[in-house]
Amino acid sequence: MSNLREEALELHRKNKGKLEAVTKVPVRNAHDLSLAYSPGVAEPCKDIFDDKSKVYDYTMKGNLVAVVSDGTAVLGLGNIGPEAAMPVMEGKAVLFKSFAGVDAFPICLNTTDVDKIVETVKLLEPTFGGVNLEDIAAPACFEVEERLKRETNIPIFHDDQHGTAIVTAAGLINALRVVGKKLEDIRVVANGAGAAGIAIMKLLISMGVKEVIMVDTKGIVYEGRTYGMNPVKEEMAKITNRSKLQGDLADAMKGADVFIGVSVAGAVTPEMVRSMNRDPIIFAMANPTPEIMPEEAKAAGAAVVGTGRSDFPNQVNNVLAFPGIFRGALDTRATEINEEMKLAAVYAIADLISPEELSAEKVIPAPFDPRVAPNVAAAVAKAAMESGVARITVDPEEVKEKTANLAAISYQKV
Amino acid sequence: MSNLREEALELHRKNKGKLEAVTKVPVRNAHDLSLAYSPGVAEPCKDIFDDKSKVYDYTMKGNLVAVVSDGTAVLGLGNIGPEAAMPVMEGKAVLFKSFAGVDAFPICLNTTDVDKIVETVKLLEPTFGGVNLEDIAAPACFEVEERLKRETNIPIFHDDQHGTAIVTAAGLINALRVVGKKLEDIRVVANGAGAAGIAIMKLLISMGVKEVIMVDTKGIVYEGRTYGMNPVKEEMAKITNRSKLQGDLADAMKGADVFIGVSVAGAVTPEMVRSMNRDPIIFAMANPTPEIMPEEAKAAGAAVVGTGRSDFPNQVNNVLAFPGIFRGALDTRATEINEEMKLAAVYAIADLISPEELSAEKVIPAPFDPRVAPNVAAAVAKAAMESGVARITVDPEEVKEKTANLAAISYQKV
Repeated sequence: MSNLREEALELHRKNKGKLEAVTKVPVRNAHDLSLAYSPGVAEPCKDIFDDKSKVYDYTMKGNLVAVVSDGTAVLGLGNIGPEAAMPVMEGKAVLFKSFAGVDAFPICLNTTDVDKIVETVKLLEPTFGGVNLEDIAAPACFEVEERLKRETNIPIFHDDQHGTAIVTAAGLINALRVVGKKLEDIRVVANGAGAAGIAIMKLLISMGVKEVIMVDTKGIVYEGRTYGMNPVKEEMAKITNRSKLQGDLADAMKGADVFIGVSVAGAVTPEMVRSMNRDPIIFAMANPTPEIMPEEAKAAGAAVVGTGRSDFPNQVNNVLAFPGIFRGALDTRATEINEEMKLAAVYAIADLISPEELSAEKVIPAPFDPRVAPNVAAAVAKAAMESGVARITVDPEEVKEKTANLAAISYQKV
Repeated sequence: MSNLREEALELHRKNKGKLEAVTKVPVRNAHDLSLAYSPGVAEPCKDIFDDKSKVYDYTMKGNLVAVVSDGTAVLGLGNIGPEAAMPVMEGKAVLFKSFAGVDAFPICLNTTDVDKIVETVKLLEPTFGGVNLEDIAAPACFEVEERLKRETNIPIFHDDQHGTAIVTAAGLINALRVVGKKLEDIRVVANGAGAAGIAIMKLLISMGVKEVIMVDTKGIVYEGRTYGMNPVKEEMAKITNRSKLQGDLADAMKGADVFIGVSVAGAVTPEMVRSMNRDPIIFAMANPTPEIMPEEAKAAGAAVVGTGRSDFPNQVNNVLAFPGIFRGALDTRATEINEEMKLAAVYAIADLISPEELSAEKVIPAPFDPRVAPNVAAAVAKAAMESGVARITVDPEEVKEKTANLAAISYQKV
């Protein structure tokens, strides 16, 4: 770990960060200057003034995503503030560019006030083609996203919620294929009621899962629980745990088919796994140490195990989702990233694993599988058009090819 | 002009804007990912959390300038809004990078409310190392700049004011050398009381000019004038025109040594030039058509003529100032761009013209003179340290060399 620390610090120090603003046009002489700046630049300005949609033709907006954070829930570090969040937001921008050719830019805000975050992002709308909310603590993140979705006309996506949910759901679909169960029949226990946990449950319910039990640090969440609630949990309590089960995580796990952990290291014991239904599926995504280590879970009878880590099989890594999702949303000039687009991303990721490839050790594609972002982008673009939120029509096959090319360009560059 | 229009539109369309966000670090495999993103990225985050100033070591902030506009006074186009302003702000960012290796990024805001602009920029302070305010209409621009200078700890610079003032002052110093007059002895008439006009007058007064007469669309501004005033003009009326002259531009010009125009085409007649003191100096900077054409002014007796245009001698072009100024401010991590730094820039630009080079046709360096940004950066860095606003100490010679290298790199890139 000390080597990683030194190597990571050296990488950041040597380069003074990880991102730069680079010119796409030459400014070598007075003629260049007269086109890129005064007086020639007045021409695209005038055309955009006449027709605002031309900002997508003449500026970087159409390929540009703001990575917005207030620094309140950064990695596992918690509320470290906007300056300390900068390396993560720059890193996210690097991933956007490397995986899907999306220009992304860190916007770390000096406030944790929901109204101010919302207001600021709204004021930035003319500049950016989309907004990736990142590492904003729950429950503020829910309100920030809700309001921005209503009050802007560009895609707003809280990756900690939906990126995680999409990749988890893709993995679950394939895990169910491995064990021969159906979404409609399973009981899912989700441990952790933060941004990711809530989003995963909502997505699974929208996909047809009927029985979900949510557990937080106070135990099982049920309708009518009077302690440790907030508006989002209240809402979830109405659509999960219809049998109003009470108790702790161990009680919830009995007879369950799937465990989804976005909680803390060691929360799950081998006994809990043994108490589950046949062929249990375990997604233990606490970072850096899972709720239960994969070998332990397997020994206790788990059929499929996924984690957040790259050194075990089936890594739930958001990078499988967000670059392609924004690529598809930007290329269709979508006004939002809706449920149809998220579901399209889920199945695009899941279906990349062919029946021949599929196994308990391979329910999720690898992060650097070059097919992922192109396929996600094409599926999301198609879903945007079919669901009526696309402002322009594109050929999904062209989106796929373009994404592959942009990612390739980026790999060459670095 | 039609060719320029088509060529400019094509340049913007083909490239979809002029700027992109590019990664400085490779993300080709899991190891790269573990350094640039999770888990390695947590290390610089933790260090910055412990010591906020390390954000300058580990992130792009220290080389990053926001080019902020509300789109209310764009070029000669006026209030065209934030979307239509984007090409200019991207272009400005291109110039920052091309001339001095500064990463700059357009921030076009969907508001013209002073409070909201100020609040938004303050909230963005963790991300940016400096702010270049651009194309914000007077008098709002004065309040925005004033407040941001007071309420932030990063350099705030309204280029339409100070960039123009600095280059004009540099040109004037050399023009006075040509005609053998001194700052203390001259009478200056400034036509136009917008952002640039006010800033030029203030700078000249701070440099020792004793007699300034300001003229606006209503005529000469004098203390006690009851029409067409605003708080900034009231303030200027107290420090200019001490003889309380009244009348129109023609009245102001009689006996003046210098005319500075930031007004409209054709405002100055040959008769007015003929009414001036011996060897009059004319800076006719209305764009695209000057207050009086250089040949006309010369024919009427002008000794030195400057304009805003690249096709005449002595172009007053802000690109001579802002890239080097921000380079020097960023490299010293200056908390502001103060008067000492602006004056240092004035003399750095003026003194680039050697006594041998100096002539009526050459009082201002050419925009692409590669000595300009390095010399300005070094002088500004030195002034920042000497005036106590630098947070770190640097060697001005190294700043000069670095600036030259960064600009060269950028020229190669494009």
